[in-house]
Amino acid sequence: MQYKAPLRDMQFVLHELLDSTAHYQSLAPYQEVERDIIDSYIEAAASFAENEIAPLNRSGDEEGCTFNNGEVTTPKGFKEAYKQYCELGFAALAAEEEFGGQGMPFSLGTVVNEIMGSANWSFSMYPGLSHGAIATLEHHGTDEQKAIYLEKMVTGEWSGTMCLTEAHAGSDLGIIRTKAEPKGDGTYAITGQKIFISAGEHDMTDNIIHIVLARLPGAPEGTKGISLFIVPKVNVNADGSLAERNQVTCGSIEHKMGIKASATCVMNFDGATGYLIGPENRGLNCMFTFMNVARIGTAVQGLTASEVAFQGSLEYAKERLAMRSLSGAKAPEKVADPIIVHPAVRNMLLTEKAFAEGGRALVYYLAMFADTVAKGTGEEQQYADQMLSLLTPIAKAFLTETGYEAANHGVQVYGGHGFIREWGMEQNVRDTRIACLYEGTTEIQSLDLLGRKVLGSQGKMLANFTKVIHKFCQEHQDNEAMAEFIAPLEKLNTEWAELTARIGEQATKNPDSVGAAAVDYMYFSGYVTLAYLWARMVAVSQKALADGTTETGFYDAKIKTAHFYYSKLLPRTRTYVARIESGAEPYMSMDVDQFVF
Amino acid sequence: MQYKAPLRDMQFVLHELLDSTAHYQSLAPYQEVERDIIDSYIEAAASFAENEIAPLNRSGDEEGCTFNNGEVTTPKGFKEAYKQYCELGFAALAAEEEFGGQGMPFSLGTVVNEIMGSANWSFSMYPGLSHGAIATLEHHGTDEQKAIYLEKMVTGEWSGTMCLTEAHAGSDLGIIRTKAEPKGDGTYAITGQKIFISAGEHDMTDNIIHIVLARLPGAPEGTKGISLFIVPKVNVNADGSLAERNQVTCGSIEHKMGIKASATCVMNFDGATGYLIGPENRGLNCMFTFMNVARIGTAVQGLTASEVAFQGSLEYAKERLAMRSLSGAKAPEKVADPIIVHPAVRNMLLTEKAFAEGGRALVYYLAMFADTVAKGTGEEQQYADQMLSLLTPIAKAFLTETGYEAANHGVQVYGGHGFIREWGMEQNVRDTRIACLYEGTTEIQSLDLLGRKVLGSQGKMLANFTKVIHKFCQEHQDNEAMAEFIAPLEKLNTEWAELTARIGEQATKNPDSVGAAAVDYMYFSGYVTLAYLWARMVAVSQKALADGTTETGFYDAKIKTAHFYYSKLLPRTRTYVARIESGAEPYMSMDVDQFVF
Repeated sequence: MQYKAPLRDMQFVLHELLDSTAHYQSLAPYQEVERDIIDSYIEAAASFAENEIAPLNRSGDEEGCTFNNGEVTTPKGFKEAYKQYCELGFAALAAEEEFGGQGMPFSLGTVVNEIMGSANWSFSMYPGLSHGAIATLEHHGTDEQKAIYLEKMVTGEWSGTMCLTEAHAGSDLGIIRTKAEPKGDGTYAITGQKIFISAGEHDMTDNIIHIVLARLPGAPEGTKGISLFIVPKVNVNADGSLAERNQVTCGSIEHKMGIKASATCVMNFDGATGYLIGPENRGLNCMFTFMNVARIGTAVQGLTASEVAFQGSLEYAKERLAMRSLSGAKAPEKVADPIIVHPAVRNMLLTEKAFAEGGRALVYYLAMFADTVAKGTGEEQQYADQMLSLLTPIAKAFLTETGYEAANHGVQVYGGHGFIREWGMEQNVRDTRIACLYEGTTEIQSLDLLGRKVLGSQGKMLANFTKVIHKFCQEHQDNEAMAEFIAPLEKLNTEWAELTARIGEQATKNPDSVGAAAVDYMYFSGYVTLAYLWARMVAVSQKALADGTTETGFYDAKIKTAHFYYSKLLPRTRTYVARIESGAEPYMSMDVDQFVF
Repeated sequence: MQYKAPLRDMQFVLHELLDSTAHYQSLAPYQEVERDIIDSYIEAAASFAENEIAPLNRSGDEEGCTFNNGEVTTPKGFKEAYKQYCELGFAALAAEEEFGGQGMPFSLGTVVNEIMGSANWSFSMYPGLSHGAIATLEHHGTDEQKAIYLEKMVTGEWSGTMCLTEAHAGSDLGIIRTKAEPKGDGTYAITGQKIFISAGEHDMTDNIIHIVLARLPGAPEGTKGISLFIVPKVNVNADGSLAERNQVTCGSIEHKMGIKASATCVMNFDGATGYLIGPENRGLNCMFTFMNVARIGTAVQGLTASEVAFQGSLEYAKERLAMRSLSGAKAPEKVADPIIVHPAVRNMLLTEKAFAEGGRALVYYLAMFADTVAKGTGEEQQYADQMLSLLTPIAKAFLTETGYEAANHGVQVYGGHGFIREWGMEQNVRDTRIACLYEGTTEIQSLDLLGRKVLGSQGKMLANFTKVIHKFCQEHQDNEAMAEFIAPLEKLNTEWAELTARIGEQATKNPDSVGAAAVDYMYFSGYVTLAYLWARMVAVSQKALADGTTETGFYDAKIKTAHFYYSKLLPRTRTYVARIESGAEPYMSMDVDQFVF
């Protein structure tokens, strides 16, 4: 398939739904981010993505990365495309001007990431991981550290990684074993092995700056004894030039289901020189900055999966001929009707569309809260922080799972051809599968949402959002044309609060209730969140139609997609509610030794 | 992972749940199929599968098939394993004794297929496709055709294929273009290209017998103008020896998402000599024999996916340590608890288990109806035929979709490690994805179920089954210990009939209603069917416990799995019912040209 950036829909979400220019106006550094600036960035990204990296998507998958004697070679064309990506300024887009960035908002960077990631997710991993390392350095680095590393990372001359996972420790970082021993000169000797390090080694940049979790001697056990270190692949002289290689090497790369053009490395630290970043034993706290960025980035991956599935399968559904519509031939001049006439095919296409466009609205909505967290002040900033905290695990888990579902519909629309590599639909499935796993699995996100965010704030974070939804419903309650959306939305919004209260009550009696309810609660929350955004999109579209727009097809399709979402996808909430109500006991009653075959 | 045939559970389903020996006693040719014979076949299959073909599963995936100048080489070890498989008699197990088979029941062959397929699905495709060709020849071949081909195919000396699909025609076979022109000597010249031909070319046998769909000159358009032909790769002399090559060649093999060790061939017929099988223009009718066998075979693939996911992820869930149980440390002597303590992990394991064991019960139940169709007489046979017709699309669609879900849980339990090829969980996902596509997609099966079977029989086929369920509920209605299962089962059973009546009524007003409801209806039907079988398994288990079995753990686990199924999986029916009730309009209201991006 040939990816085409859905510019009209992006503009709809940015300008019409979320009024991004008003949002940017409200933040001091973004006063000059006008609509034409936004659109020109997006168009430039679309042009680069469609022409330069989309064509490398399938060849990158076929070729994969190769490992030879500690060195990793990226697939043909990746190195050149990366160079161009940096030269065009995409690497530096949302970084601070003081470090060579263009100072654009995070949310605009996120839109660009969607475009790049839809075109070639594996490619987008290389700059993507750098962003996490850059954010960590910006927030927690000393001035000296920033001066040494940031500018070269921002421009993309050097790349960055995040080294968290060890073979025995993924979700549970409290049990990592990598050691950091003080060398007496203010630096540390880092020793241990990290796995699943994206872009841990590659041939695109002269240096790679690893951000590494490790334990100091005598550190407390568990998550409160972990510190964070900068470990450059090549040591850096005081003047910024490269010195000798550090003692960090790539031991091998993983053979994976997908994202094969992204190098997933085993990294060996053999007394490598490291520099403490942030306070001792507070490494995990410093890491949260990165983790939030990475989770939003992964939510974007879910969105791209839905979009790619929609684009790929739509093309096929309009062309492929098979059987006649049950309500009479629609293309009598052909040997059969195009399969888009069949309700089951439309179900898949509309599911992809509803998740892609709804997911886009959620990701941009979320990213604008991140802007306010970064650049806002006072109560507004605190409120944005709470909304971001609540919505991030929903977006990450819900959009990656629904993206994976959509990716599978993309295959299914193609029938047997979907299973063949040529069409790109099966690659979308394989590439997307990781999104439900990395940066915290769906199960971990769900626990974060229900346990830490919702119950942990005594319902306050949730109440922030249900108030927003309630207010929206109030505003539209007299609008007859909105009734089919407002009534169920208001009901679900009330149910959300009640459900939360019931789980909270269960939890006081049985702590396993939270774990038992979490994933279903996440799905319920996701469906309600998207229902809210779809209802808002209907309101915008109805207004545009009432105002006499010429794009009647576009806005009418929005309303019909919302109608589909409310009729066919929202009923899924019935299952989640019923599952939550049956509690923890059906999971926990079986003894471990009864799990046999 | 190391596959181990779940012998105890197989015996439970065969002997305790379905009383297979009594079933075999009721059919004349199977009087001597006693329990010890059944068990010895299964044990022999387990030994061969675990030791000989399971070890080739991952290497076969890595190596794949190779194509060179018309010839296909199967992965290392496959040829030798196939030879051994035939020598041990597995190929001939369920074939007629008159043609060199062992004359065992189809249902026993299905159990053996489950074992082989769980160990190595790609390997099992080679003999699997032969079974379809054999069944077609047995039913529709002339005595002469049978004499020439059958014995060598039954023993596995030659293999067979089914050549249906063309590049432009998959689900819609009515539009195929391959031609058959009479040569004047009673044979036909077959010309055209077939795609997706499993085992179309390979290096395991000296000859390959293709069963090919093609059109005679002047044949009526559509499905009523298709005839069936035998096209041997190598022509066969009257004495059965091999003559010259026929004009059929493999043009290439497909590069696929999974089942990479199974050769999926493009076959070119260039005036190849073919022999008509069955009446002219009745080829699709003759094909139904094969299609039913193939659909049951694909339902088995769904079951294997759930079983493999369960076995693989159970092992990991018991070993992998991460975090503490929310209800207190369960392994305080270790750095963390094994992840099986977490409800979300148990949800995935129990879902896999419920689909694997429930799916096994459904497949064996179905296969015994196939025995009766093949060897029964009179009303019993007619009844079995109707039950088989109803249950086959349910088993095919529902078990492949739930198998795919389970395969994905298998990956998810492993976290990031699930994405790595080493553990076999991602291969299970890739291999299983095809099961929802080939032999009729989920959407096609669903239309077959609702349109052709249920509504097409004016509800009679469904009534046969709802009566069985109703009778079972009646028998157990006074059993207090069964109440939690009987009450919801009876309710769902009644709802099934009501739902069907409502769809039937909708269909008279809007023909698209059937297509709109079909997939949801299939899922609803599948969940009720498995609910019935799980309730029956509970009844058997409660009796065994009451009778003082020493295997209390085994039977108790069955009851708890049923409890999980009723509490956590049956609520999914609420969503399907709600979706069906919102009708066709949300799918059909959007104009084709509004589907854009």
